[in-house]
Amino acid sequence: MRAGTRRMRAAVWYGARDVRIAEVDIPAPRPGEVLIEVAYCGICGSDLHEYTDGPHAIPVVEPHPASGAMAPLVLGHEFCGTVVAVGPSVTGLTSGDRVAVEPNYRCGTCPRCRAGEYNICRHFGFAGLMGNGGMAEYAAVPAYMAHRLPEAVSLRQAALFEPASVALHALRRAGVAPETVAVVGLGPVGLLTVRLAAERNVRRIVAVDVSPDRLHRAAGLGATDLVDAGAEEGVGERIRELTGGDGVDVAFEVVGSETALRTCLAATRRGGRVVLVGLASQVSLDTFALVNNEQSIVASVGYRDTYPELIRLVAEQGLDLTPVVTSTIALDALVLDGFGALLDGPGNQVKILVAPAAHRDGLDHLVPCGASAGTATLGTSNRLGRC
Amino acid sequence: MRAGTRRMRAAVWYGARDVRIAEVDIPAPRPGEVLIEVAYCGICGSDLHEYTDGPHAIPVVEPHPASGAMAPLVLGHEFCGTVVAVGPSVTGLTSGDRVAVEPNYRCGTCPRCRAGEYNICRHFGFAGLMGNGGMAEYAAVPAYMAHRLPEAVSLRQAALFEPASVALHALRRAGVAPETVAVVGLGPVGLLTVRLAAERNVRRIVAVDVSPDRLHRAAGLGATDLVDAGAEEGVGERIRELTGGDGVDVAFEVVGSETALRTCLAATRRGGRVVLVGLASQVSLDTFALVNNEQSIVASVGYRDTYPELIRLVAEQGLDLTPVVTSTIALDALVLDGFGALLDGPGNQVKILVAPAAHRDGLDHLVPCGASAGTATLGTSNRLGRC
Repeated sequence: MRAGTRRMRAAVWYGARDVRIAEVDIPAPRPGEVLIEVAYCGICGSDLHEYTDGPHAIPVVEPHPASGAMAPLVLGHEFCGTVVAVGPSVTGLTSGDRVAVEPNYRCGTCPRCRAGEYNICRHFGFAGLMGNGGMAEYAAVPAYMAHRLPEAVSLRQAALFEPASVALHALRRAGVAPETVAVVGLGPVGLLTVRLAAERNVRRIVAVDVSPDRLHRAAGLGATDLVDAGAEEGVGERIRELTGGDGVDVAFEVVGSETALRTCLAATRRGGRVVLVGLASQVSLDTFALVNNEQSIVASVGYRDTYPELIRLVAEQGLDLTPVVTSTIALDALVLDGFGALLDGPGNQVKILVAPAAHRDGLDHLVPCGASAGTATLGTSNRLGRC
Repeated sequence: MRAGTRRMRAAVWYGARDVRIAEVDIPAPRPGEVLIEVAYCGICGSDLHEYTDGPHAIPVVEPHPASGAMAPLVLGHEFCGTVVAVGPSVTGLTSGDRVAVEPNYRCGTCPRCRAGEYNICRHFGFAGLMGNGGMAEYAAVPAYMAHRLPEAVSLRQAALFEPASVALHALRRAGVAPETVAVVGLGPVGLLTVRLAAERNVRRIVAVDVSPDRLHRAAGLGATDLVDAGAEEGVGERIRELTGGDGVDVAFEVVGSETALRTCLAATRRGGRVVLVGLASQVSLDTFALVNNEQSIVASVGYRDTYPELIRLVAEQGLDLTPVVTSTIALDALVLDGFGALLDGPGNQVKILVAPAAHRDGLDHLVPCGASAGTATLGTSNRLGRC
């Protein structure tokens, strides 16, 4: 903690197009909580939606039942850092522990929590959306959210555990060992789905996007086939052709659109499964074809019990998640170089990390994104590293 | 076979509203086929659709690849009877064997057939829709369709194996052992789903329909709760209330409508599953809610490997499928007392069986439908038994 101060900088959501980098009190950890000095916090599409036209998930009328918080609140749910204080009754974590935060709240008592499916807890929510999050120098979160990292896992890897968890949970929802998959939509979650499918030795991984840059990234992460959805007609049929006419076992819809869902259904074999990760709203669906092809549409939301597997894969299997990172910025640059860059259009940026402590620590701890194209260059103003 | 004749009566589909009870040649069993004297053939909703505004599944442009047949063809895919002749190269079946017919074609070589999922064979189709069926005195079908019946299984029970197979397959598609289910739509398949769910000791079975008569039947078949969808507002919410507010593990959509699908989704708990049996067309679906509730929509079409289990349940567990039968008619009465009665409106009839041999055998073999309301009465004209 900064000597001689109880104040910190944080990105606070006040309303749509009104996210302020403000000086606020450093939270004191309550019973059962830990205080974390945040190393990195990724920007998620959800954050962007809250910024552009929220509130969507952020409580503005009454406090969220799990967090007790409501707007204005600190954004950011993809974060990791170092424990600097523990609240009363916390066991198993101490100051100095490096941790990845699994930000979903859980009540522990509802039927889904009792079934181990805490991702669909009655009080479903995330720190950083329904409560204060990690786009701040410090964050106080329930201790159950903090997974201690072994030495072999860097904070830079851990910064990707949240979106990687979404991808891993989606793969688990795909059922037992598909041989062929299509991943439609190559944002951070789509790319990480490609990477983790490769990790699971899926034989054929068809990556689909409109961005040549993202398709190129997917190839580097393990995709066996690339389909440019912007350039080709009949994308679903093209994917079926790639699998001998039958279609893939599982297609992942990671866009959140009716078009992508239709592509997935057209690309999937009889008896196959579409895993719905992207959030659309009303879509029109041909259930006659769905039934006759005996397909399933399986929704996937959040994740559960994914952090231990990710820790193991990084520590023991050499899994590298960082190729999806395209930029690392200071907290003060969030609106301009974070939200602004992501809103510039798809393809230029994938995952942007915010490093809230950078303005006082200097740039030394910012690792260049060597795994993706280009070399790290220091930007002007608040842009710290970009690749 | 009738002595001295090679002709038989059959219900032949020529076009919408043009089903003729015609004298046609008795088919000679080809290699790999058996010739069956048909005892009963149930009328399915699909037959009705082909009658009212077909063709839907019936091939009219070119022969179906599996059957080699096209219209005009003999309707009826829910049938059973006695083998009276076997074609060359048939083993394991002989004249005199009583058999239930599992009418789906399968190529045996496509990826789904090789995976044992022959219900979604590349040449998906049914005898009686894509080839000649069982609304006739005799039917020649591939021997692989014929399941020999032990003595303890009557032909009257076997007449229900086809719709019961649809129900059983849907239950299997529901996944492992749900504790609570809702069955939305109490036609024959819905009622049989209720019956087989009870057979599987599902703790809570909520039956939903607009017809008080069908709800009453569902209660007799094992439903624990009845919801009159015509009388109650917010049917999905009502079902959730019945399960303590959480919703059922699995809801079966056995209507084929957008409203029924919405009811099912509203009735199903987070992480639960809607099994789609009914055939609708385009429906509008709120995928935002689907994802946030992490629900699945799992289609179920036809059946596979269900006949052996049904034979065992009837022979060894005393399963009685016949309460869904409301009427048994002669072949000549098909259009008037079969299609006509079913088109009169829901609730009056559930499953109508056609008994093609009745006009020559007399009525002795027609069993009154004692399990449902009313007593068997002989109708005038061609109506043989009705209850």
